[in-house]
Amino acid sequence: MPSYKAPLRDISFVLKEVFGTDQLRSLPGYEDLQDTDMDAILDEAAKFCENTLFPLNRTGDEEGCHFENGVVTTPKGFKEAYKSFVDIGWSSLSCNPTYGGQGLPLTISTIFTEMISSANSSFSTYPLLATGAYHLLEKHGSEELKNKYLPKMVGGQWGGTMCLTESHCGTDLGLLRTKAAPQADGTYKLTGTKIFITSGEHDLTENIIHMVIARTPDGVPGTKGISLFLVPKFLVNDDGSLGARNGATCASIEHKMGIKASATCVMNFDEATGYLVGDLFKGMSNMFVMMNSARLGIGVQGLGLGEIAYQNALAYAKDRLQGRSLTGPKYPDKMADPIIVHPDVRRMLLTMKALNEGNRMLVLWTALQLDRSQSAKDPAAKQEAEDFNQLMTPIVKAFCTDTAFELASLGVQVFGGHGYIRENGMEQYLRDARIGMLYEGTNGIQAMDLIGRKLPMGGGRVVQTFFGPVQAFIEQHKNDEKMAEFVGPLEKAFGRLQQATGLIAQKAPSDHNEAGAAAADYLKLFALVAHAYLWCRAVLVAKDKLSSSEKAFYQSKIETARFFMEKLLPQTGTLAVNIAAGAGPLMNFQDESFGPF
Amino acid sequence: MPSYKAPLRDISFVLKEVFGTDQLRSLPGYEDLQDTDMDAILDEAAKFCENTLFPLNRTGDEEGCHFENGVVTTPKGFKEAYKSFVDIGWSSLSCNPTYGGQGLPLTISTIFTEMISSANSSFSTYPLLATGAYHLLEKHGSEELKNKYLPKMVGGQWGGTMCLTESHCGTDLGLLRTKAAPQADGTYKLTGTKIFITSGEHDLTENIIHMVIARTPDGVPGTKGISLFLVPKFLVNDDGSLGARNGATCASIEHKMGIKASATCVMNFDEATGYLVGDLFKGMSNMFVMMNSARLGIGVQGLGLGEIAYQNALAYAKDRLQGRSLTGPKYPDKMADPIIVHPDVRRMLLTMKALNEGNRMLVLWTALQLDRSQSAKDPAAKQEAEDFNQLMTPIVKAFCTDTAFELASLGVQVFGGHGYIRENGMEQYLRDARIGMLYEGTNGIQAMDLIGRKLPMGGGRVVQTFFGPVQAFIEQHKNDEKMAEFVGPLEKAFGRLQQATGLIAQKAPSDHNEAGAAAADYLKLFALVAHAYLWCRAVLVAKDKLSSSEKAFYQSKIETARFFMEKLLPQTGTLAVNIAAGAGPLMNFQDESFGPF
Repeated sequence: MPSYKAPLRDISFVLKEVFGTDQLRSLPGYEDLQDTDMDAILDEAAKFCENTLFPLNRTGDEEGCHFENGVVTTPKGFKEAYKSFVDIGWSSLSCNPTYGGQGLPLTISTIFTEMISSANSSFSTYPLLATGAYHLLEKHGSEELKNKYLPKMVGGQWGGTMCLTESHCGTDLGLLRTKAAPQADGTYKLTGTKIFITSGEHDLTENIIHMVIARTPDGVPGTKGISLFLVPKFLVNDDGSLGARNGATCASIEHKMGIKASATCVMNFDEATGYLVGDLFKGMSNMFVMMNSARLGIGVQGLGLGEIAYQNALAYAKDRLQGRSLTGPKYPDKMADPIIVHPDVRRMLLTMKALNEGNRMLVLWTALQLDRSQSAKDPAAKQEAEDFNQLMTPIVKAFCTDTAFELASLGVQVFGGHGYIRENGMEQYLRDARIGMLYEGTNGIQAMDLIGRKLPMGGGRVVQTFFGPVQAFIEQHKNDEKMAEFVGPLEKAFGRLQQATGLIAQKAPSDHNEAGAAAADYLKLFALVAHAYLWCRAVLVAKDKLSSSEKAFYQSKIETARFFMEKLLPQTGTLAVNIAAGAGPLMNFQDESFGPF
Repeated sequence: MPSYKAPLRDISFVLKEVFGTDQLRSLPGYEDLQDTDMDAILDEAAKFCENTLFPLNRTGDEEGCHFENGVVTTPKGFKEAYKSFVDIGWSSLSCNPTYGGQGLPLTISTIFTEMISSANSSFSTYPLLATGAYHLLEKHGSEELKNKYLPKMVGGQWGGTMCLTESHCGTDLGLLRTKAAPQADGTYKLTGTKIFITSGEHDLTENIIHMVIARTPDGVPGTKGISLFLVPKFLVNDDGSLGARNGATCASIEHKMGIKASATCVMNFDEATGYLVGDLFKGMSNMFVMMNSARLGIGVQGLGLGEIAYQNALAYAKDRLQGRSLTGPKYPDKMADPIIVHPDVRRMLLTMKALNEGNRMLVLWTALQLDRSQSAKDPAAKQEAEDFNQLMTPIVKAFCTDTAFELASLGVQVFGGHGYIRENGMEQYLRDARIGMLYEGTNGIQAMDLIGRKLPMGGGRVVQTFFGPVQAFIEQHKNDEKMAEFVGPLEKAFGRLQQATGLIAQKAPSDHNEAGAAAADYLKLFALVAHAYLWCRAVLVAKDKLSSSEKAFYQSKIETARFFMEKLLPQTGTLAVNIAAGAGPLMNFQDESFGPF
């Protein structure tokens, strides 16, 4: 049976030692936020995830959600767990105090999301979408809508969704067919069918607030004619009580590969009453607020899945006795050595460990900048943080989910045949992880977003928010001999990234396919360079503390960084070669050559 | 809904054009085997797989096998499909005519295995294991056992299994605890529990012949004390009729991630009557006959899964309209372009196509050499073929299954969110493919087999069966300018392989961990070089036929080879760097540094 223990020491290392919580305290509103306060919250969060959510993970997968006559029932225990979630106040963690939120940094709720996702990835989707809807409404809604809906959403009594996809359009939302007909009273009647609506219908909350994009009669074809509407499951009376059932109903739920306890719904809107959110025809751009928040959340979900896969693979590798070390028995008194003695098992474990911890640094770096972008007083600082988030969101989303899948598969592999058996839990992490690469924009779309939108954004100003600090770090430390084994590989990989960036900037304007062909490799190259930079920073911290009582902990950081530099970072070489090979091998390939013959 | 069409043209290209069926006709017994005969068989095999097995694939996955009171029932339709399978004579395809087999080359049954695995991977496991048991008994059994058991196994009336794993030992079979107690009549009584027994119990055949390894009272600890026994589900009377139920019963079946219609059984042997097969204490080495056959079969299963994933991803990419080409609309009359216009979608499809077709060449090359190793008259030719098979078996097993999983995942990705939905079929291929990396020896074990056993075997004689032809090919074609874009990359990658081989030969003898640390990367490097070599051969053939009526087909081979050389082969660079980095980063990593902290 799998187990989960929130990696509080690792989290604290990244938050307090690599980045430092002074960053948070420098922001207005957080001046008095003490480390001890955050520790207390994260301790409680860890207990909730370990003791309440994790025990429901396997049973939730086995049972799945139920659908009958439009009603969705979550697996046994989910309703009670969600009630505890709300009672403790977890739903309001980083929400605006004006609406009853606790006003804590997004960094804190991001850490919590990692833990929830490790403990119960399906469960995580309910608050994740609700939070996305909250952010969208808080940013773009009228005062009237905000006052009416936000308090209950913040309180967790009401859920939220994001209704974008239709059966004929996912990536290409300009094709959408859902109609919004304006009514005399200023409301709209929405009609159409949305698919893949995560938590579109369930029994966890009293009401569900759908954020729906649709086209008004005067909306032009394409994305520019799309507007955003709030469509509640139950209409809300002026006194805040629930009124009549709205025409937003669940037609069915999907049977999926994983996250089976998360209800993925087909939603029918049949003249459902909706309220315009933000300006007419600004639906797509406004929706991006929610998508960015959701994309970061999906990346964090990947981090959580990689973490739990590692924890259990490690425990198994220490426990499973099989064969002997290639250099002679390490535990001659036992019937065999634990499989962790084998180089190939260590390779798998270290790949998991290094990428997980690198992803955690990447995620928290991004989350801290997100708080800065929202709260910094200095407009330049705010802009810089916003730029950084624009740049990193697709990278966090795609790289953390790609690696989650890869690492969950390594976790299965460490278990051997036992990894394929459901009761051992490892295969669920693999199935649950596979969705991350698909939803909230496939990872191919993320790569195009990075290379096609974010790279040229601001004439290079956006990309400079990453290149600048990395360049400065290398300059500062390149002559430090003790750091050479880390900074050397970083410098080399960063050189590849710069070269690839230049190549794309040169070729893509005259042939957009050059950007498309390079996109996936470029995103991966970028992420690995980011990991390398962050590992260097981690090593600097760790080297300073080797004489502390936690020597083994800090030593582990240095050794993990070394493994990353020697065994994982070299793939940047192949990525650079592939990028240089350009679009030719893909685009010169003739359509009929794909077959079938 | 997914579809399947056996890739007969591709198969015929590899069999007849790249390798040539004269190879088969040069073997005693196959002199009169005409291409038209083989075509007729493969046409029929294709129809059987497409029309009988494929329709049961999804339903079999949804229903799974049932277990009740020791009885295993396969999903609806499996029993009837198996009856057709037997009635048509598919079970006896490559079996010895002495026992009722059709005596066709193993190459033909290998091709059939690819098709079965595409159509219904779960179904493929029943004949695969039965064939393995057949080979083992045919090679090592006494005349009496062979005459009594083989005819019904060849005929498919009786199934077969391979009972190795116990709960505490899979890789390390020397630890096994199952006992075989000799009886006065020369038989044995077997007692113990085996797990992960594929097709250990089911309703497809009248009897099941278990090949069981166990330890006799005088068997020393470790693998040298292990012997092999035939244990039938029902005892067989002298007249061939079925007698009493033997003490070999199914205690439960596993709930697995995939291949859910394949019964994976816990088998209890309770004083079950068994018959010694081969010499006492030679159980492990004799079992390897079956394992090699099974390992090749598992690799072929991977090929089949990669093929069906490609076929359906391709069809979807041509059909799904979403977005516009980055260089402007390709189909302005449609609401959007098909997603195959996008470079990143083409990258995924071409990766699938190139690796599938390379794997097919690798598989059939190996299968042809297997026929040669069994039938060649010239002892030197026989030995060479046997050497080649020793070398290639772990590569085929591990690389084809690793890529099957990777390609099935790409297939899901091409479908976007629709790939995650069970009814679309793609996620099943991914789940079904995951087992290939685990069973019949994990891929880590295959890599160790290659680097630790096969590389040094015969003082380099074994590895020379691959290096020799590649070296000769490069010498012959390196000055051919028209082949330069293919032979150049091959030469470079082969140089990396030679260098890595030299490095390992130099370092491993004094530190076995150096072999272990390099193993996984080395196997992949080897396989990619083999692909490169085979693509060069395919290009040579295709270039000669560009003026034929099938120009598009041959052009496709050349373009696919070009993609492989430019976009996939470069990863050999990273693999070589990782191998050169050695065991240090893995073995110097301290055990306590793995955490948890």
